[in-house]
Amino acid sequence: MNPRRYLPILQWLPGYGRATLGSDLLAAVIVTVMLIPQSLAYAMLAGLPPEVGLYASIAPLVIYAVFGTSRTLAVGPVAVVSLMTAAAVGQVAPQGTPEYLGAALVLALMSGLILTLMGVARLGFLANFLSHPVISGFITASGLIIAASQLKHVLGVEASGHNLLDLLSSLAVSLDGVNAPTLAIGLSVLLFLYAARRWLKPALRRVGVPARPADMLAKAAPILAVAVTTLATWGMGLDALGVAVVGEVPAGLPPLTLPGFDSGLWSQLFVAALLISVIGFVESVSVGQTLAAKRRQRIDPDQELVGLGTSNIAASFTGGMPVTGGFARSVVNFDAGAQTPAAGAFTALGIAGAALLLTPLIAYLPIATLAATIIVAVLSLVDLSAIRRTWAYSRCDAMAMLVTIGVTLGVGVESGILAGVGFSLALHLYYTSRPHSAVVGRVPGTEHFRNVERHQVETDPQLAILRVDESLYFANSRYLEDTVMELAARQPGLRHIVLACQAVNVIDASALESLEVINARLRDAQVKLHLAEVKGPVMDRLEKTQFCRDMTGQVFLSTFDAWRSLCGETHALGRPCGVTDPVSPGTTAVEDRLS
Amino acid sequence: MNPRRYLPILQWLPGYGRATLGSDLLAAVIVTVMLIPQSLAYAMLAGLPPEVGLYASIAPLVIYAVFGTSRTLAVGPVAVVSLMTAAAVGQVAPQGTPEYLGAALVLALMSGLILTLMGVARLGFLANFLSHPVISGFITASGLIIAASQLKHVLGVEASGHNLLDLLSSLAVSLDGVNAPTLAIGLSVLLFLYAARRWLKPALRRVGVPARPADMLAKAAPILAVAVTTLATWGMGLDALGVAVVGEVPAGLPPLTLPGFDSGLWSQLFVAALLISVIGFVESVSVGQTLAAKRRQRIDPDQELVGLGTSNIAASFTGGMPVTGGFARSVVNFDAGAQTPAAGAFTALGIAGAALLLTPLIAYLPIATLAATIIVAVLSLVDLSAIRRTWAYSRCDAMAMLVTIGVTLGVGVESGILAGVGFSLALHLYYTSRPHSAVVGRVPGTEHFRNVERHQVETDPQLAILRVDESLYFANSRYLEDTVMELAARQPGLRHIVLACQAVNVIDASALESLEVINARLRDAQVKLHLAEVKGPVMDRLEKTQFCRDMTGQVFLSTFDAWRSLCGETHALGRPCGVTDPVSPGTTAVEDRLS
Repeated sequence: MNPRRYLPILQWLPGYGRATLGSDLLAAVIVTVMLIPQSLAYAMLAGLPPEVGLYASIAPLVIYAVFGTSRTLAVGPVAVVSLMTAAAVGQVAPQGTPEYLGAALVLALMSGLILTLMGVARLGFLANFLSHPVISGFITASGLIIAASQLKHVLGVEASGHNLLDLLSSLAVSLDGVNAPTLAIGLSVLLFLYAARRWLKPALRRVGVPARPADMLAKAAPILAVAVTTLATWGMGLDALGVAVVGEVPAGLPPLTLPGFDSGLWSQLFVAALLISVIGFVESVSVGQTLAAKRRQRIDPDQELVGLGTSNIAASFTGGMPVTGGFARSVVNFDAGAQTPAAGAFTALGIAGAALLLTPLIAYLPIATLAATIIVAVLSLVDLSAIRRTWAYSRCDAMAMLVTIGVTLGVGVESGILAGVGFSLALHLYYTSRPHSAVVGRVPGTEHFRNVERHQVETDPQLAILRVDESLYFANSRYLEDTVMELAARQPGLRHIVLACQAVNVIDASALESLEVINARLRDAQVKLHLAEVKGPVMDRLEKTQFCRDMTGQVFLSTFDAWRSLCGETHALGRPCGVTDPVSPGTTAVEDRLS
Repeated sequence: MNPRRYLPILQWLPGYGRATLGSDLLAAVIVTVMLIPQSLAYAMLAGLPPEVGLYASIAPLVIYAVFGTSRTLAVGPVAVVSLMTAAAVGQVAPQGTPEYLGAALVLALMSGLILTLMGVARLGFLANFLSHPVISGFITASGLIIAASQLKHVLGVEASGHNLLDLLSSLAVSLDGVNAPTLAIGLSVLLFLYAARRWLKPALRRVGVPARPADMLAKAAPILAVAVTTLATWGMGLDALGVAVVGEVPAGLPPLTLPGFDSGLWSQLFVAALLISVIGFVESVSVGQTLAAKRRQRIDPDQELVGLGTSNIAASFTGGMPVTGGFARSVVNFDAGAQTPAAGAFTALGIAGAALLLTPLIAYLPIATLAATIIVAVLSLVDLSAIRRTWAYSRCDAMAMLVTIGVTLGVGVESGILAGVGFSLALHLYYTSRPHSAVVGRVPGTEHFRNVERHQVETDPQLAILRVDESLYFANSRYLEDTVMELAARQPGLRHIVLACQAVNVIDASALESLEVINARLRDAQVKLHLAEVKGPVMDRLEKTQFCRDMTGQVFLSTFDAWRSLCGETHALGRPCGVTDPVSPGTTAVEDRLS
């Protein structure tokens, strides 16, 4: 066991020096400024008190610095995970109750345990269940739902719902209650943030600010909006005019909390925790990998699971909520020059300072401001052009994306992911259930064999050679039975069928049974079954089986050997099953594939 | 639209003649004799009154004769589906209530609708989700649970439970209540049936009875046991001594019933209905295919879904229960010489006769007799040696089987299938998430390329050729990123990476994005990405993409072209992406795989 692998902090802490410290401190200051409004806003999005967002941005960042492998990932509350938290916790407790807070802690703990266990068991590959189109569709749909869910705060009305239909119809009935000062604040912030995103950076560049600082300043716009609208609300007493404000936020460090261990609650939240874990991991690992590649660093996905898992466990014991690596925030951290995860730990210090000192100042922060920052942030997640691009490349992938978007918008986030994953798995099985294969014939005068439907090749009425282009496993084994039996039915004079297996990497137990079935059915039809070009590892396993003993035909080293032997042109060259032939150095082409 | 395809009865009814009629009638008589005790017993296993089993063996058989494609499949209640029915319905209503009966009808209707819709939408491939080891393990475990669930009837005690642990512990506490006459009947029937199975056929053969009739007679043993024990119970008044009997069974044809449309009940039963449908379909289609192949006939799996679906719908409107094609019964039908599905319709007439006339006679039929027939029938389903066989061939498949058996026995039937399917899908994704690939080099003096780790081949420090041995899709695309970046990191002087794609049949949208990521990361590292031996259909789709325009390198027709061009031995031979080269007839080996 290598401690540097399981405690990645040992890889960078011993060599930590003054130059790195400077870079990390600067990045931490910039990320802190960005993270304060984000953490308040995402806590609100999750239906939690604002301080929970701050608490979730302290201990988890420190723990990630110890266990995480990305040098620049910025961990904390993120939009999609907060939305999923609201959807999950909202099903077990009403918002604003202690039960709701408790359920959020349980969710963070479960998600942390799931991630950590997946990392320890090296199950990171399970994230592959989520295809790119499903993730892309899910994030687009989540962005739309989040934006819709924040509209009520910008309008100053009541509305609720966990999918787009519910949200919009709930908004529609309460539109006459719009609060004008709230709307004014919300719209101004929206316009300001949009303008800052669009024009501030080019403007700063024009007046001579270098590219990176210009970008940093543009990204600090939300904190400016927070400061200005808070001051305005306090100065003009807008809260008395119906502008909803954050209100009193307790000052202080995160409390120590003990998540509940109610087995009913745990089983109710299990699916949600699993989905939050996987979605959070995928989002985090993809940004982590992209940033690492830019500096020729590598991250270890399985250790990342441990890093994110322990961060979530830390969140659950310090009054937080589920966290993961955020995209925009990590890019800022990277661009600001963060060199090591110490930058994250320094960010945690900054947020702790804010929790201690700044909370009295945000009592007058309008909720409409936070809602507007969320809307502008998540609308950049919405990528509708991806639908068109994917459609042009692959209808099936586009359908998986549309199913995900449709179900997420129409039903909800959990159903949306599950539908997308189920649909793409079913499509995958559908396509692999019909394995590519081709009946091949001999290119005259050569040892090569090609598809009879595309090339002028020699064939023999007694012999059919079927080239199998994929590994054989449970999803496609039944189709192989059909293909072979159809071939036998089509060619009445047939006496030999050869399966050319150069592309078969694996034959699982289901496919082995199908081969047994094929062999038995062909035997009844007086047709012999032969194999050719079976790869070494596949043959090693076949040799021990009953199939190999029952097989009516032979195993040939090459398709050409089978052709020569079964067309009767020369003497038989096949070997009985179970006897291995040394590969003679003179043989050609076919062995390329045997290696 | 071809009516003969959607109404398979049109394929055989017009040519129906006297010879076929004789064969079908004989088979129908034999199957009826076998089906009467089975239908009573499986109704009991499902927790339903005995007449429900008879009703489920009338209309469904007639409907299957119209819509089914197997000539010899015998439809009706079967053991595993009855067990699953008991487990599903038992969760929504207590046994013996009208709600329980109603839920069984709803389950049959839902299962019928699911099967029919799957057939119409040609979704038969979804059954491929169930691998052979999972089905085999599930049937073994179900056989054990069914046998355990019937022990109480043989012992004359009370017990309950839907998994082996519950059943055995529930039996253990009630053992002191064993009823001696019941046990005597149960053990006698068990011994008699076991002996008939084991020795009756050889004994009949020895006295000169031909093989088939001997087999038929041996299979008629249960009806003899039913007759003798019923007479004995009636004659000796054993029911007064505590022997539980079937009791009064209403005589008459099946009632018309209308399944309820309570949406709560439907959603509670949905998963169970889906699993019953798929398990029933898989069981039925595998016996149907085996029997069809013996006579060079074919069945159409998608039309089979319609046949079984409409049969179940018929069952739900005629007071029945979920049905499917039974294994033992179909084999008897086949061996007895059934030629067309008319044999099934005649069997339905026989059962209808029994329902009208024989029900008064079975009032004294001991339940212990039925339980014993079930136990002997299902223990033949238990195949523990399959575990050892599968383990020897493939540890992974054996683990999927053990997980299925373990969860089915320990938790229940639905959880067992779901765990098995989930586990085998996860394993499949795990293996395909690491696609086979090999770095290859040139066999000196030839145009062939082989694995550098296994052969003496030429390589070039500026060039790495990676042969990708599988289609690229969402589950393995991330691993490809890792493999390529590791290759680039390992070889510092590298300037070109060639992906040799001769085994790549498909590149889905996720894999396309991974290729874009790989291209961008390699560009940052000053390494060019090239492709070689891309199949025609794959290239057609790639040509339309942004990736193809952004690609830093070229697409080569053959690996050798890439080698010649990139090693600088001769002039460049690659073509810019998007330009197709006609395949020149002089090129060799590598194109075999391009066809």
